[in-house]
Amino acid sequence: MTANDQTSAPAIVTAAILVIGDEILSGRTKDKNIGYIAEYLTNIGIELREVRIVADVQEDIVAALNALRSRYGYVFTTGGIGPTHDDITADSVAAAFGVSIDHDPRAIAMLSERFPPDQLNEARLRMARIPAGADLIANSVSKAPGFNIGNVYVMAGVPSIMQAMLDVVAPTLKTGVKILSDTVRAGLREGDIGTALAEVARAHPDVSIGSYPFFSETGPDTNVVVRSRDAEKLSAAMVAVTTMLQSERAKAEHL
Amino acid sequence: MTANDQTSAPAIVTAAILVIGDEILSGRTKDKNIGYIAEYLTNIGIELREVRIVADVQEDIVAALNALRSRYGYVFTTGGIGPTHDDITADSVAAAFGVSIDHDPRAIAMLSERFPPDQLNEARLRMARIPAGADLIANSVSKAPGFNIGNVYVMAGVPSIMQAMLDVVAPTLKTGVKILSDTVRAGLREGDIGTALAEVARAHPDVSIGSYPFFSETGPDTNVVVRSRDAEKLSAAMVAVTTMLQSERAKAEHL
Repeated sequence: MTANDQTSAPAIVTAAILVIGDEILSGRTKDKNIGYIAEYLTNIGIELREVRIVADVQEDIVAALNALRSRYGYVFTTGGIGPTHDDITADSVAAAFGVSIDHDPRAIAMLSERFPPDQLNEARLRMARIPAGADLIANSVSKAPGFNIGNVYVMAGVPSIMQAMLDVVAPTLKTGVKILSDTVRAGLREGDIGTALAEVARAHPDVSIGSYPFFSETGPDTNVVVRSRDAEKLSAAMVAVTTMLQSERAKAEHL
Repeated sequence: MTANDQTSAPAIVTAAILVIGDEILSGRTKDKNIGYIAEYLTNIGIELREVRIVADVQEDIVAALNALRSRYGYVFTTGGIGPTHDDITADSVAAAFGVSIDHDPRAIAMLSERFPPDQLNEARLRMARIPAGADLIANSVSKAPGFNIGNVYVMAGVPSIMQAMLDVVAPTLKTGVKILSDTVRAGLREGDIGTALAEVARAHPDVSIGSYPFFSETGPDTNVVVRSRDAEKLSAAMVAVTTMLQSERAKAEHL
């Protein structure tokens, strides 16, 4: 099912994230963008299906981007669009799409809002290199734009700038029916409820039921999360989960 | 070059991480394992080249695992080895390797250290399902083991358990020459140094030079990171970077 379906089934819009950067793979920098974008997309009705992190190597970026853009509705990239020699995302995206890349007058105009002519040096002008046919994504933080080509949105790696760009992009995106979710704390260990929870999951095939163990102040516990695009099915499954949990807690108390 | 080369060139051992879990893709849970494993591998001389995050869908797990295990020296997976119906990593790994999967007596023995027979129910016994031919990875936190098959290491998603498993696995891994790195703070904006830094990078092709902007209390600044397996080449490049930065700072002061 794609976002173009005109049937009564709810539209599903899918996405992937491609994080570009040696500094994430070396562990020197801890990524803060994946979780942010994931939550953001969920909240606007876009389903994140895959994430990849690749190094600053054009061949790797091109291969990952082409794999993801052919498979998912949208691809959001972060990182590698700064002014230095190791920022090769724009060139790699142009290569992936098989288009030329050059200094873009619109991007130079944006950079000129921040930098006087004597500071708009060769390095900073690298940030105006945009693949042919791309639309620019405004950057309210530091002016150097991101860009959109096809279903790919190329954004900065600095979290504050990426977030500002995502706010610009979001209203232009096609979105699907939001996935609704509800969470209940089991008060039991995951292994205590696993068998019964599997039965509930089998009886409610149209919802997704996840089980997430955690350590609370009173010991190991579990959150059960039910997700669905259909509010009624979600509600019915939650009733079944809650009833099951009451029964399992009662059994545990009698042990 | 592979880890098996017996030439004088330094051995490079590569790795990938495969994170398995709907809860990461929905944004509900923020991953804490990628950055930890990345830094850990760098410190022991294994080069992390790629990370993928996929959903709890067997087809997706199998495809990603087969792509990564054929390309990199090691693959570390996190998530999906708990006792509930949504934990499908072990079955997916067995499918990827084309081997059978069954309850493993060694794994049952480990679980029996924690759970009395009446608690070793169907759900918990799921955690003893291990692909044929795999070695177990001990879990000092909660007993349910991870496992190793081929060049793939299957670990828990809960960070404290994953970390304990990684400590067990690490001494058994083949490691390469560590990548050394040194960092210098530029005291200048990235765009101020980009042109000159590219020249330094061209003059030192055997080192990797990265440039990472950040906001300090005094405004935008840049860390320059030089990385190499060769201490002398690293040192020579650092001298060149530092000299360049002094020159660029002097220019900036005279503007």
